[in-house]
Amino acid sequence: MNILVELATRAKEIGGVRVYKKSVERVFSALLRSGDFWEIVDMADLPVPAASGIVRTLIERGYAFIDDEENIRLSQKGLDLVRELGIEPYVEYVCQACEGRGIPFYTDIDFYREFLQVTKDRPRAIRDYDQGSVTPETTVSRVLFMDSRGDLRNKDILVLGAEDDLTGLAVALSRKARSVLVIDIDKRLIEFDNRIFKELGIDNAEAKVWDLRNPFPEEVLGRYDVFVSDPPETLPAFRAFIGRGIATLREEGGVGYFGLTLRDSSVFRWRDFQVSLTTEFGVAITDIVQDFNAYITWDYHPETKAAEIAPVRRNPKGVWYRSAWYRVEALPGFKRWNEPIGDEVFYLDEEGSTT
Amino acid sequence: MNILVELATRAKEIGGVRVYKKSVERVFSALLRSGDFWEIVDMADLPVPAASGIVRTLIERGYAFIDDEENIRLSQKGLDLVRELGIEPYVEYVCQACEGRGIPFYTDIDFYREFLQVTKDRPRAIRDYDQGSVTPETTVSRVLFMDSRGDLRNKDILVLGAEDDLTGLAVALSRKARSVLVIDIDKRLIEFDNRIFKELGIDNAEAKVWDLRNPFPEEVLGRYDVFVSDPPETLPAFRAFIGRGIATLREEGGVGYFGLTLRDSSVFRWRDFQVSLTTEFGVAITDIVQDFNAYITWDYHPETKAAEIAPVRRNPKGVWYRSAWYRVEALPGFKRWNEPIGDEVFYLDEEGSTT
Repeated sequence: MNILVELATRAKEIGGVRVYKKSVERVFSALLRSGDFWEIVDMADLPVPAASGIVRTLIERGYAFIDDEENIRLSQKGLDLVRELGIEPYVEYVCQACEGRGIPFYTDIDFYREFLQVTKDRPRAIRDYDQGSVTPETTVSRVLFMDSRGDLRNKDILVLGAEDDLTGLAVALSRKARSVLVIDIDKRLIEFDNRIFKELGIDNAEAKVWDLRNPFPEEVLGRYDVFVSDPPETLPAFRAFIGRGIATLREEGGVGYFGLTLRDSSVFRWRDFQVSLTTEFGVAITDIVQDFNAYITWDYHPETKAAEIAPVRRNPKGVWYRSAWYRVEALPGFKRWNEPIGDEVFYLDEEGSTT
Repeated sequence: MNILVELATRAKEIGGVRVYKKSVERVFSALLRSGDFWEIVDMADLPVPAASGIVRTLIERGYAFIDDEENIRLSQKGLDLVRELGIEPYVEYVCQACEGRGIPFYTDIDFYREFLQVTKDRPRAIRDYDQGSVTPETTVSRVLFMDSRGDLRNKDILVLGAEDDLTGLAVALSRKARSVLVIDIDKRLIEFDNRIFKELGIDNAEAKVWDLRNPFPEEVLGRYDVFVSDPPETLPAFRAFIGRGIATLREEGGVGYFGLTLRDSSVFRWRDFQVSLTTEFGVAITDIVQDFNAYITWDYHPETKAAEIAPVRRNPKGVWYRSAWYRVEALPGFKRWNEPIGDEVFYLDEEGSTT
């Protein structure tokens, strides 16, 4: 099996990110199912630089090659290795009804239809702020998930820095929250939300422009029952979004929801996040639902570092970027973190590539 | 809102376990949906002593009463409080297709049927070892879940101390693992498994009696790709099952699966488990799927502490005990823990009650 370790070591050099034997095995499994690089990233659950480093290594060592249609294919040498190591093709059994989320988005079909109707002119995702919208089915499922956990009805809810998904709008549209505050750096989204709130006469919701690198003002801290976010996966951004989200919670028992992906951060960094959540911030993790959030490939994909470092130029054909849905609960003694964020890398670091 | 804090404080005295405001709110939400104590425990996601302490407190303070059919009902005073605080009834939107697991058990219908057929004479759950079997749909879904994560095919798999669920048998029945070792303290289960393996000619699986309070022998340590368990929720048992499970992993990238419930441990203790997993044992948590594991109410329920401390004598009518499904991945530098367990409380502590 040492060959996999050797390949991982070389892939780490090429990709510039942490990779271990299992990562290489995952790419082999994915290659037995698809030649499309973006599908491989999706199936292997790896940061793009890691998947790219591995694929380039396999090509360099003669285990794989790129065909005329930019498919990545195993060579005979690659197929022999896979057989020798007993690596099998990737399989999936995702529920067709709920798309694997455990809660079907069509449970409240009127709500789903209204959301589609109201958001048909939604602002397009732009690159400036690391945007990438989730599918409408994802957004609606988030609200249903919150409702099923008692985190929606008559709650004061803050949606921070992820309104390209229009989750704040969906929460407000449900008309079940006590109040909704949407905070985002993108003026287009804030104006869009406020216009809809006004048109529909939703008077318990408002949207405000805010740059989360700045600390929250006093009136936001300790005021909410629930926060929702979808942070970029760098450590500074995690603090800015999740640390500050926790700081807005009124009291113990407060709840946070957010997406975390394995496409822009590794399982190694996930542990760092989890240590930070449970030890520093003082919350318990109650849910991690993989692939809950499905993202529509953003228009600016060809300009991203992901596209640049990919071993092929071919663009993604369908959904390839997914994230897990986290729910955390603030326990007695939880910590409110609200420091300014300096000039640290915010949107992009060595594992991230999609901004 | 201070009334909820006051009720929580009193409930903590009566129940003898940690309870906070949110716990009381959850019980109120559940009471707006059901009068059945076991359904209330299920909906409120609380340890039995906590739910019982809260219900008894509500009765003591005149917010609830027990009717002639042993239903717990809100009094007018209780209904007034609920309205005043804006507490709404518990709702759920669980996917009917996959029962909320994200993977439907009928995906491989032949496998499901074979499992039912083979296990029709399975040993009944007995009290001696804190047994309580999950439904066959749960067991089959566990195997499909493992397969979908690349943790089944050609893997060396150890199933430790949870064979009342027959998960080891199901893994072996899939005929996809490289090898399967089942370890359990209950000789009946071990003999059952070995008989089936023999009858079906499954020669890569075996079952052995072992008491997990004892350290594993050398030949088991560092030998497996994947372990599966379903520990009692005391801290010593967590170490014995999960710590030892991690110790059997061959290398970084090894994977563990186990159930953890909020019926026999609190969200407060969940954080302790999570700190231990991520900091001490050096694993990352990749999945927490709530209510993945549904347990058939055990025959010995009337003899349990749970039945004894419940505010009513009426037995559960259907599934009320569920647990979340955890998947963890061992990272570089993970720790192999294999100490003997002494006379500490193993099956039962203040939060546990179902053994």
